[in-house]
Amino acid sequence: MPDPLPSWKDGPAKAAIVAFVSATTEPASKDFIRPQDRIATFDQDGTMWVEHPMFTQLEFALARLAELAPQHPEWKTTEPFKSTLAGDMAAFAKFTMNDLEALVAATHAGMTTQEFHGIVADWISKAKHPRWNRLYTELVYQPMLEVMRYLQANDFTNYIVTGGGQAFVRAYAERVYDMTPEQVIGSSLETHFEYNAGGEAVLMRPPKLLLYDDSSGKPQDIYLFLGRPPRAAFGNSTGDQQMLEYTQSGGGARLMALVMHDDEEREYAYGPSSPPGDTKFGAFTQALYDEAKAKGWVVISMKNDWKQLFPFDA
Amino acid sequence: MPDPLPSWKDGPAKAAIVAFVSATTEPASKDFIRPQDRIATFDQDGTMWVEHPMFTQLEFALARLAELAPQHPEWKTTEPFKSTLAGDMAAFAKFTMNDLEALVAATHAGMTTQEFHGIVADWISKAKHPRWNRLYTELVYQPMLEVMRYLQANDFTNYIVTGGGQAFVRAYAERVYDMTPEQVIGSSLETHFEYNAGGEAVLMRPPKLLLYDDSSGKPQDIYLFLGRPPRAAFGNSTGDQQMLEYTQSGGGARLMALVMHDDEEREYAYGPSSPPGDTKFGAFTQALYDEAKAKGWVVISMKNDWKQLFPFDA
Repeated sequence: MPDPLPSWKDGPAKAAIVAFVSATTEPASKDFIRPQDRIATFDQDGTMWVEHPMFTQLEFALARLAELAPQHPEWKTTEPFKSTLAGDMAAFAKFTMNDLEALVAATHAGMTTQEFHGIVADWISKAKHPRWNRLYTELVYQPMLEVMRYLQANDFTNYIVTGGGQAFVRAYAERVYDMTPEQVIGSSLETHFEYNAGGEAVLMRPPKLLLYDDSSGKPQDIYLFLGRPPRAAFGNSTGDQQMLEYTQSGGGARLMALVMHDDEEREYAYGPSSPPGDTKFGAFTQALYDEAKAKGWVVISMKNDWKQLFPFDA
Repeated sequence: MPDPLPSWKDGPAKAAIVAFVSATTEPASKDFIRPQDRIATFDQDGTMWVEHPMFTQLEFALARLAELAPQHPEWKTTEPFKSTLAGDMAAFAKFTMNDLEALVAATHAGMTTQEFHGIVADWISKAKHPRWNRLYTELVYQPMLEVMRYLQANDFTNYIVTGGGQAFVRAYAERVYDMTPEQVIGSSLETHFEYNAGGEAVLMRPPKLLLYDDSSGKPQDIYLFLGRPPRAAFGNSTGDQQMLEYTQSGGGARLMALVMHDDEEREYAYGPSSPPGDTKFGAFTQALYDEAKAKGWVVISMKNDWKQLFPFDA
């Protein structure tokens, strides 16, 4: 049998993943799970792809804001638009939830679902990460893609469960993750059923948040979409804590894992032992680390567990 | 090849279903659909099982209200509980949305998701329909089960899309429809992530409606869960109109079908040509009939298209 996880170094993280899949898929095992109950959930930002220096979707929002600015001269003098357009990240870091919602409303709403899909698909096909000068969709972690494929080959169904936008991720999920739209769970705006000028049914995107799929929202939305705790869950930050706790609450053989960013050379270091204050995105606190160790969760060290980071490193 | 729809009489409805499946699954066909895009949605009440004299879930709510009444002496003098407990269906028919929400709150909320699942599973394993003296889950339509199996055998994934409660239907969906929980979309309460006394993650059901999955809610929730219009959709009432319109809006080969209740002898007659005013549940108006005919939707006559109604009729 070929190694299902060739980008992983031999070590406790890889061993735990392989042991979980073996235990849950061998019919004679006491931990056997029926194929229809084999569900695995993956956070996206920081777990599946790079989330620094800022979330990719935030880059999208900033680009779209700049594109729309000429039609909105009032943004030059109104917050939160003024600071955002000026690239004032210090001001941005202090934005309230209302400020962030105003930015989402201006950049993500007021169009049909199909129009938004097209806007995202177009942007993500061109926009590049400033450090690697690569498309954002190239900056997925090869070891995590291997975990997805390994689980899929063993009749697990994988889901993205992201604090980012469900509609945003769906625009590239098939190409990047081999996932259908229903495999993407995320923060969502409401939609509104209407008829267009031709009398055809369309769904509009009003600026109203329906689901905020982070922290406690993750188990709540997993229950809404899937009806039970997953068997395996992968995250990387405090926003994934409740998803992993919910996964473990299901009992029996479960795999809870956290990707720890501790590789400043090949990517970024902002794990529990990194200097504090270097980021607002994807905090992995000491408290989360302690909980992981106490509860038997797998902590994946990017530095020590991964031979290769990106597909293009091959 | 054995007949995939043996409970159906030969006629235009059966022919349309078979033609749709053939056209969309033969690789050489211009209407071929990739297996991962083969999605079919089914309304439940009146489409998959009997909805008269009232929705099964309403019977459940009434039974649960009666069970809880001794702990709530105030219900004897407070609406909407007083009229409901007295079986005053005339008063019930005039209830506002607020009244109905109060009944849902009293009977469906204030417990964990697992507790609610257990309560429903217990009730539905015993409660019987007054006319047939059969379990409600026996009163599914054999011809519609055959459509589900036929589609499933052709790599379609079926979904229930119901105005009824998602958590209610999930409690019996595997047994009755061979469906996993994620194949059930329906009206939903919010859930709230908490820790129980043992420090374990649980989801509580507060009395707050999150999704009302009827009429315009159906396409909105199909988009939320599945990300695109289904390829085939089956309904039976005005509450399914927008789901069928949304299905058709996707273009290409699509199947829209409505079950028409016109068989007073074997079941009930409340279709467009039935005397008006006989029911509040599952209205199939003349306007809906006219729309169906104008748009090429399939109208299924229970009387003329179905040889056999229930599995136990065999």
